[in-house]
Amino acid sequence: MANLGLDALLREFDDRRPRGLARAISWAESGRGAELIARLYPRIGRAMTIGLTGPPGVGKSTLSSALVKKARSLGKTVGVISVDPSSPFSHGALLGDRIRLTEHFVDPDVFIRSMASRGHLGGLSGATADAVMLMDAFGLDVVLIETVGVGQSEIEIAELARTTLVALQPGSGDSIQVLKAGIMEIADVFVVNKADHPMANQLRREIRSMMEMLSFTGWVPELAMTQAVTGDGIDDLWKAIESHVVYLHESGEIERKRREAFAHHVRQLALGRLQMQLDRRLAGNVRIDLDPYAATDELLAHFGSFDASEHLEAHAPTPALRPRAVVRGLTGHDA
Amino acid sequence: MANLGLDALLREFDDRRPRGLARAISWAESGRGAELIARLYPRIGRAMTIGLTGPPGVGKSTLSSALVKKARSLGKTVGVISVDPSSPFSHGALLGDRIRLTEHFVDPDVFIRSMASRGHLGGLSGATADAVMLMDAFGLDVVLIETVGVGQSEIEIAELARTTLVALQPGSGDSIQVLKAGIMEIADVFVVNKADHPMANQLRREIRSMMEMLSFTGWVPELAMTQAVTGDGIDDLWKAIESHVVYLHESGEIERKRREAFAHHVRQLALGRLQMQLDRRLAGNVRIDLDPYAATDELLAHFGSFDASEHLEAHAPTPALRPRAVVRGLTGHDA
Repeated sequence: MANLGLDALLREFDDRRPRGLARAISWAESGRGAELIARLYPRIGRAMTIGLTGPPGVGKSTLSSALVKKARSLGKTVGVISVDPSSPFSHGALLGDRIRLTEHFVDPDVFIRSMASRGHLGGLSGATADAVMLMDAFGLDVVLIETVGVGQSEIEIAELARTTLVALQPGSGDSIQVLKAGIMEIADVFVVNKADHPMANQLRREIRSMMEMLSFTGWVPELAMTQAVTGDGIDDLWKAIESHVVYLHESGEIERKRREAFAHHVRQLALGRLQMQLDRRLAGNVRIDLDPYAATDELLAHFGSFDASEHLEAHAPTPALRPRAVVRGLTGHDA
Repeated sequence: MANLGLDALLREFDDRRPRGLARAISWAESGRGAELIARLYPRIGRAMTIGLTGPPGVGKSTLSSALVKKARSLGKTVGVISVDPSSPFSHGALLGDRIRLTEHFVDPDVFIRSMASRGHLGGLSGATADAVMLMDAFGLDVVLIETVGVGQSEIEIAELARTTLVALQPGSGDSIQVLKAGIMEIADVFVVNKADHPMANQLRREIRSMMEMLSFTGWVPELAMTQAVTGDGIDDLWKAIESHVVYLHESGEIERKRREAFAHHVRQLALGRLQMQLDRRLAGNVRIDLDPYAATDELLAHFGSFDASEHLEAHAPTPALRPRAVVRGLTGHDA
């Protein structure tokens, strides 16, 4: 990393030099984003932020690429943040997948950045939220954040982006999971990609009937059928996204979305710092003579205002964190 | 959950009634594990703890099932903890996979428990470490923890278990990722499952040549070729596990492993509590008039001894958390 100072970096921002944006994101990733973000914060709020999530293999990168193309055809500048799902095993395959975005590499108005979600925190890191904010402040019209639906990332992407697309795969049994896993709560637009698949219409029907069982207050998720490879259906998908943006503004919900994204950002930054501080204290300082709960009390006593009486609910799952099904055997009955 | 008190639960433990173990784990999951663990802590340390991780589809459940069978043939009692990888999309498929363990459901000396890793923390929760400890205290001879290698879980499983098995898939390109992703650091035994696959020998050669490039201090990872479905190679795999256990004891490394597992446990409990406390404070208390970094400072000021000067390194990646490859475009150059 260059020793380029903050002012020089801000000048590059003013001149809309992509190198400035790339450096700013690198600063944020390496934990030096505070002053930068403070200075650029007044400039944000203009970008259309779109989150895209779905299972591996659904064609997220091809969809991203098609959406970038569409946005460019409308004269919009675009930023893409690909969040790495942190699987040590599938990493190679996913990078290969991303190569589909290469067709936009030569376009100076498309800025593509791959980021790691890897970390003890799981999900998206504070740096991802920093990057969205920096792209917005840089003046990009559209910021697309894509991540595979694993861990917490699909919930977090919905907190971070104003419009969330959930891509589903025909013939995969995905639809059954949509209701269970809280996906219905995050999807502003469902995308049935690979619409030429023999099971595509069945998936559409399944999503439709699930939606009929529910009553929505406010926005009702739209459904777009696409074939990202050929570009079929991308115009409809774009229209659905635009409808959602219009809805957000007309209903005033845009304010809630802004607060949500802000709270998400603060939470990720705060968790990152607490974790760092905890790890420093843990290094060589675990009271191995105690039991783990007592050692935790001891460790957290250093966190000042931490209220030890809270520990009874220590990792009590919140609704979003509820334990999944328990495999019950004759020997594993649960009271 | 019953209103069964702690003493009654401990009596069920003393009587080695599986229902007592099931309840104890449920208590831990719902955040009521502190006193229970404190009381049972003196009993732990006997169990052979084995972690099993690998990519989706490698056959982890079949391998688990085969290892359970092997351990049972040696007269050992076994606990299995299946950690759910938290994908809303693949959940159904993974549960289906676990059905392979059903052959052991009727065996009163096999205790199977499925747990969620889902949570803002990602990776394993404090309750997973609680469950390992409880199974150990209950007197189970072998505790097998299996999880898919996504997020942080594969690193954490190595911190929690004394012997870590990494299963790899022939023909998947997994081997290339082993070095990059730090898998070499966690694998005590590599398992090439589906050894009848035409690419199995190539995968074995690749792992061998990677290992030749490195110099090991202490334990050199073993490699077992298995066909979990038929049981082929499971005896060799078991021998490799036993060799590692012997090594741990003879070298004295067992102490390091114990400390690691303890520190991991404390860390997960502490993170869970800090996160809960943070979320409480976040509810309705974000200073949206500030920029996110300033709002984070403000929020963390409530955490007493938190040192605001640490924030410059806020989410600076540690080596294990280093950002992955950056997709570079003409517009995405990194300084």
